[in-house]
Amino acid sequence: MNKNPYAVLEQKFNRIYQLQHLASIAHWDMAAMMPPGGSQARGNALAEISVLLNDFLSESEIGDLLKASNENLHNLGPWQQANLREMERKWLNATSISGELVKAKSLAGSKCEHAWRSLRPDNNWKDFQPLLQDVINLTIEESQQRSLAMEMSAYDSLLNLYEPGQKSEVIDSIFRQLVDFLPDFIQEVVEKQKSQTILKPSGPFPVDKQRELGLALMKAVGFDFEHGRLDVSAHPFCGGVPEDVRITTRYVNDDFSESLMGVLHETGHAKYEQGLPEAWRNQPVGEARGMGIHESQSLFQEMQISRSLAFIKFAAPMIQKYLRTNEHKAEIWSSENLYLLNNQVKPDFIRVNADEVTYPLHVILRYEIEKGLIEQKIQVSDLPEIWDTKMQQYLGLSTQGNYKDGCMQDIHWTDGSLGYFPTYTLGAMNAAQLYTAADKAIPELENQIEKGNFKALNQWQSDRIWSQASYHSIDDLMVYASGETLKPEYFINHLKNRYMG
Amino acid sequence: MNKNPYAVLEQKFNRIYQLQHLASIAHWDMAAMMPPGGSQARGNALAEISVLLNDFLSESEIGDLLKASNENLHNLGPWQQANLREMERKWLNATSISGELVKAKSLAGSKCEHAWRSLRPDNNWKDFQPLLQDVINLTIEESQQRSLAMEMSAYDSLLNLYEPGQKSEVIDSIFRQLVDFLPDFIQEVVEKQKSQTILKPSGPFPVDKQRELGLALMKAVGFDFEHGRLDVSAHPFCGGVPEDVRITTRYVNDDFSESLMGVLHETGHAKYEQGLPEAWRNQPVGEARGMGIHESQSLFQEMQISRSLAFIKFAAPMIQKYLRTNEHKAEIWSSENLYLLNNQVKPDFIRVNADEVTYPLHVILRYEIEKGLIEQKIQVSDLPEIWDTKMQQYLGLSTQGNYKDGCMQDIHWTDGSLGYFPTYTLGAMNAAQLYTAADKAIPELENQIEKGNFKALNQWQSDRIWSQASYHSIDDLMVYASGETLKPEYFINHLKNRYMG
Repeated sequence: MNKNPYAVLEQKFNRIYQLQHLASIAHWDMAAMMPPGGSQARGNALAEISVLLNDFLSESEIGDLLKASNENLHNLGPWQQANLREMERKWLNATSISGELVKAKSLAGSKCEHAWRSLRPDNNWKDFQPLLQDVINLTIEESQQRSLAMEMSAYDSLLNLYEPGQKSEVIDSIFRQLVDFLPDFIQEVVEKQKSQTILKPSGPFPVDKQRELGLALMKAVGFDFEHGRLDVSAHPFCGGVPEDVRITTRYVNDDFSESLMGVLHETGHAKYEQGLPEAWRNQPVGEARGMGIHESQSLFQEMQISRSLAFIKFAAPMIQKYLRTNEHKAEIWSSENLYLLNNQVKPDFIRVNADEVTYPLHVILRYEIEKGLIEQKIQVSDLPEIWDTKMQQYLGLSTQGNYKDGCMQDIHWTDGSLGYFPTYTLGAMNAAQLYTAADKAIPELENQIEKGNFKALNQWQSDRIWSQASYHSIDDLMVYASGETLKPEYFINHLKNRYMG
Repeated sequence: MNKNPYAVLEQKFNRIYQLQHLASIAHWDMAAMMPPGGSQARGNALAEISVLLNDFLSESEIGDLLKASNENLHNLGPWQQANLREMERKWLNATSISGELVKAKSLAGSKCEHAWRSLRPDNNWKDFQPLLQDVINLTIEESQQRSLAMEMSAYDSLLNLYEPGQKSEVIDSIFRQLVDFLPDFIQEVVEKQKSQTILKPSGPFPVDKQRELGLALMKAVGFDFEHGRLDVSAHPFCGGVPEDVRITTRYVNDDFSESLMGVLHETGHAKYEQGLPEAWRNQPVGEARGMGIHESQSLFQEMQISRSLAFIKFAAPMIQKYLRTNEHKAEIWSSENLYLLNNQVKPDFIRVNADEVTYPLHVILRYEIEKGLIEQKIQVSDLPEIWDTKMQQYLGLSTQGNYKDGCMQDIHWTDGSLGYFPTYTLGAMNAAQLYTAADKAIPELENQIEKGNFKALNQWQSDRIWSQASYHSIDDLMVYASGETLKPEYFINHLKNRYMG
């Protein structure tokens, strides 16, 4: 090898980054712009580039270059070393399972997901079960291959695709604390909220007004419209590229909160992407640090900031300006009422609609089940019964016979994305811990939020999280930002203060 | 080679097609959706895929496979044989110039085009000339390399990139007939139109109403919204992919015709793309048959159909419905007045704003000059003077000292796209000839147009042009569709009938 092997790696990963840019914009377009007839052609084009990207990433030459670079680690600066570590992780993820398995899983996943879209509304578990069984079998095989290559347990090897360095042992202990605390706490909160009078403003709220309000609040909290935009899609998401972040929402005619809080949630994701360090954007180390940290930034924006009383005091006049009609009484638009309206707690069936207090139990239930599936302690055929048992235990609800609101409600397992669920709750807990740290570091933070001044807060997040990209491990990043690794106490305290304070 | 070499070629060209899909959508997005801050990252991503596509297309393995397939031509069906011919053409285009030259021209072109965007408004020829000189020098070198590989004259080798099989010899003779006819004819038309009273409706015409009108007429003439959409961009174009065609327009507040006729023009391009044969979409033979035929379909829709009295009789009530305000007198919206309004002839400086009668002279002027540049009979330094001389001769206008409305007005030469200009006028002539053939084949065509019934016409275009893709050569396609190769008489007769009839 004549050339500096690390420099060659940077070139190769730059090419991968550029091609991912095109795939990412095409994904956004598919969800937000594409007419229905374009779907098959788009699917083919995205499948082709995904194969190509996998080919580029699995090149055996990359293995050689990684080895050669590691032998001369002292020549590299600290960010370059971190970049090399992230390159290695990506290469290992790409090469640790066989090409045949990738293909087989992708086919079975497409088939199961496609069927799920009509079987779920029909509550048809019988026809869904064998399709899911195929996907789970292949995911078990995947986890075993990955486990060997990555020298960790089968389930952890899947978890590490989304949350590098995380161990289920640690998650078990963190989640146990939540399970010990939440069920009783939820009862208390529900009891307390029964006595509160909440006025619900009646719609319809015109979509263009909802959109203008969303844009105004995005601007207020620091979304950079030179490098991003807001559109509509069936399932809200944050996509695009750091240089051009595309977030989406959906508007409900008679409930403005859903879109408003959704927009702020995605804005949290977007600000993270927009704040990634420019110098490292085309390299693995320049990417966001895993899904749990990503979710921490969206929940920081949504749960810690935007649903707080201080923020709602700031936002209430704007909300009123865009949405109030002559029929609405003034009390409806008071910050106190809007605050209560945006913080109601109710145990229910559907994870995506859950409030932040019940949400972790939805996640823990899934985490326990998917770990059981991978460890082959739970069978696919047992899913409905286990789901029902756990729902009764955690949230006091029965899903017996109700598959569509039970074990068939999520898309994640249909394509075999096991290991993803825990990142939602890790994110919620990270967010609470980070907010506590920010609150310590920034004088009069609550007061600033109430005044709509997010400058110091954004600077803090930028310094502590966004600009750090994947330079640290997840644990080190939490220490760098908050002084310690993840502790569930901060989240539990946050819930106590907000709902029982 | 174990596998069927032709089948391997199809696979390779399928991959190229899929990646072009992503590049094409990213191009559309850049023009229609992207926030300004995304531009550098997008430029990098598009440059990367363009290098990758060029690499894939220039693989020496493709040369071997082409050779092997040609040796077993009898095993292939007629569309496969045509596909092989088109693959060979693409491969030859990609390999006939050196990689260094591609790179050098791309750099010089970007530099010149970028500078042009500010130098043109400043009328700054002095600083533009050396940049253009670099691009022209490299384009001359390109034409010489291509000329050798493709065994045709230097200029023809560039022309063939856009108009496969076309010869400048033939164009010379066709254009000569237009030069003989047009200058005097234009004077006659201008004289005649002086006596016509044309009422110009006063705006502003709200953009959303203009948009609704455009969509309604797109729908009426057969644009398939399941496979395409209409958006806004600074420079209108037809992009996307055949399965999902993206057309754009720009709205002028006080002139609805510009967007309306622009939308119909792009709809003509779009219907061609949407009508390409599904079975061959991912292969070279499934592509549109060159730029002159593509332009014939947009001008068929715009000039032959939409600016005809019959069409305007159909469209007038719709135009009125969307755009008329209380201030407008009824006469303004009569089909007769709208017809005159949309067919005014006036010699002027700017090609893109020209009417269909003066347009060919703008094109011929550029064709003669660019051919002279490639043949090194004209020097870049002589451009302003030659431009002025020819403008005086053809349109009776002087551009002395007025570079921005003279030889600096177009983008084409700034990146070295010499050979493209003639396709505009070839398209206009093809369109007139095809309309004559359609009129013969379809009973009561004018009557059907007046009734807004485009079914038979679309079917005819589909049978004769769209479904044929690149199966025939250009000449053979014109014979297949109209019974003979391109004859300028049809266009000349069309002009006589419309403007002096």
